[in-house]
Amino acid sequence: MEKEKLLMTPGPTMIPPRVLEVMRRQIIHHRTKEFEAIFDGLEEDLKFVFQTKNPVLVLASSGTGGMEAAVVNLFSPGDTVLAISVGNFGDRFADIAKTFGLNVKKLAVNWGEAVNVNDVKKILDEDVDNEIKAILVTHNETSTGVTNDIEAIGKLTKDTKRLLVVDAISSLGGLELQMDNWGLDVVVTGSQKALMAPPGLAFVGLSDKAWDAVENSKLPKFYWDFKKYKKGLMKAGENPPYTPAITIMMAQAEALKMIKEEGLENVYARHKKLALATQAGVKALGLELLPNQDVSSYIITAVKAPEGIDIAKVIKTLNLKYDIMITGGQKDLKGKIFRIGHCGYTDGLDLIKTFAALEYALSDAGYKVEMGVSVGAVQKALQ
Amino acid sequence: MEKEKLLMTPGPTMIPPRVLEVMRRQIIHHRTKEFEAIFDGLEEDLKFVFQTKNPVLVLASSGTGGMEAAVVNLFSPGDTVLAISVGNFGDRFADIAKTFGLNVKKLAVNWGEAVNVNDVKKILDEDVDNEIKAILVTHNETSTGVTNDIEAIGKLTKDTKRLLVVDAISSLGGLELQMDNWGLDVVVTGSQKALMAPPGLAFVGLSDKAWDAVENSKLPKFYWDFKKYKKGLMKAGENPPYTPAITIMMAQAEALKMIKEEGLENVYARHKKLALATQAGVKALGLELLPNQDVSSYIITAVKAPEGIDIAKVIKTLNLKYDIMITGGQKDLKGKIFRIGHCGYTDGLDLIKTFAALEYALSDAGYKVEMGVSVGAVQKALQ
Repeated sequence: MEKEKLLMTPGPTMIPPRVLEVMRRQIIHHRTKEFEAIFDGLEEDLKFVFQTKNPVLVLASSGTGGMEAAVVNLFSPGDTVLAISVGNFGDRFADIAKTFGLNVKKLAVNWGEAVNVNDVKKILDEDVDNEIKAILVTHNETSTGVTNDIEAIGKLTKDTKRLLVVDAISSLGGLELQMDNWGLDVVVTGSQKALMAPPGLAFVGLSDKAWDAVENSKLPKFYWDFKKYKKGLMKAGENPPYTPAITIMMAQAEALKMIKEEGLENVYARHKKLALATQAGVKALGLELLPNQDVSSYIITAVKAPEGIDIAKVIKTLNLKYDIMITGGQKDLKGKIFRIGHCGYTDGLDLIKTFAALEYALSDAGYKVEMGVSVGAVQKALQ
Repeated sequence: MEKEKLLMTPGPTMIPPRVLEVMRRQIIHHRTKEFEAIFDGLEEDLKFVFQTKNPVLVLASSGTGGMEAAVVNLFSPGDTVLAISVGNFGDRFADIAKTFGLNVKKLAVNWGEAVNVNDVKKILDEDVDNEIKAILVTHNETSTGVTNDIEAIGKLTKDTKRLLVVDAISSLGGLELQMDNWGLDVVVTGSQKALMAPPGLAFVGLSDKAWDAVENSKLPKFYWDFKKYKKGLMKAGENPPYTPAITIMMAQAEALKMIKEEGLENVYARHKKLALATQAGVKALGLELLPNQDVSSYIITAVKAPEGIDIAKVIKTLNLKYDIMITGGQKDLKGKIFRIGHCGYTDGLDLIKTFAALEYALSDAGYKVEMGVSVGAVQKALQ
């Protein structure tokens, strides 16, 4: 019997049936009062999850498009930025900046580590001529299951001219993030992770300081031109400037209602609880986290593959035999780790089910598992 | 009683229930065999509607994103292009090219006219040094209801080094377009018009000549980088490079199946028949087309507003009282025309219904209408 696939992946994540029902609706036109009402509600709720007073722009693109949009709207060729990379997506942000002619100073750490905020402070302190205009950083790095301390980095840039540009694609709506209070200047996220909607939308919030930078940016842009999107927000019937991904916006509006109903604090607490339970299950299996526990992500847990076990086979068994998707490592970590996502529309029983299947699959692959050992540990941690 | 809105608009257009059912499905992951099968089917059917042997790239963006992607992938700063504009979307293509530092020679005609192919020929003939690297042109201009003769323009560039870049956003899948046979080098379209899917996807086809230009292009690109998308197509599990708009791709795959089932020739014939019936209805109302009949679009019909009638009110009445959306004019044509779309998932009875409501609404606004006069004309034309 084939069951609906349970995605315990870093994204896309499962979509709540309530949100899927919205997707089923006939399309509406985007230059109508009906759409405007949906857009206004979406905008209001996006501000809420971003924890910002400023408008949040809605782009029809994947999250990577939102990262590119941030770069081309904030900077001019030759501008210097500090790109902090703790994994694949941090590398991507640095690559985007390089592609558009920025002078990229890269602070990279070993995969599995978070950035040491003191290292960032030191680099900024040594930059006496204020060459570094901005920091680009990933909040939650899905490739390594590591969360960076964005609040602490925010303290370094908050009352300075420097901008803090945060890739919060996999974190926003799952990990605490207070855009305005923490002094984050640009926050980019996507629809398909903690925000529980289908992929296809990127969201970008900007501080007043970031909007000033937009005014001075000289990189060419058309589709990504934030000023056009902002103008649209101010003028009824012109948001966004190009035909928006209407259906996904309607779905996202519904998913954000669910987040508000659950309560943002409760959503964060659920993600934390699931993560700690995952860690307990991993430990009970005699396995090790890739990162140190104190920086291990509440969105996705990266686990070292047991010695001598073909982890790709384990992941495949979970998928084909038990209809549960977890993922392997990317780039250098391929074959060396597996990753369990617990983000968005996921609860404790999803996790228990995942560990039950993982026990079977690990056992099939030759790893010695006492049945129920990790399931029990997860259950206890969730109790 | 409020009925579901009937969109007789240039896009988004109505989505077939079969396609909406697909949207209701739970999300699947994009790095799976299941998704690969959907993607391969989509790719095959896109090649079919594009009438090309080459891959068609799938971008998570609106159609405008596809236009920008074409520009940044084909050209280098300072390259000269001839931008043909017969309306709002032709202007947009020229603006995008200017934004990215191209030297844009613009051939603009009065709104409501198609480009005279001899004028294009003359400009190319005079360009003895082959400065003009490419022509940018709109196939079907929705703002004015005009179709350009792309096949004829193709003959001017086919066996030359020049590229022909076609915005077929509102035409592809509704108007005949033979990418390879006509020598079109780049064809851009979107999901939400004749292709009967929700907005959020752009599709770009490239000829071998266009792929050569991509190799030489120096404009920076990351999200739009065609080479990455092409690489993804060649390598299982890496298409597309960034999280795609999975749900809309599944919907588009379903909608393309419907087009294949109806038969491309039949789809073209239906669009033509609906357009000619619309023209008959307009004439029966004593109204005039904006363009000459021989260039009037089979996708959308632009009609001059009757003297002394508040056409915005007529459009509003259709929308609020009869739940049918037609649209007004853009920019300089605001208040001067109205436009009836007959594109995508639309049949004769939709059109008859629209004319019945239009008769009421025009009459309400003070225009003398003998009830049934246009409806009868439309019926006859459709018979």
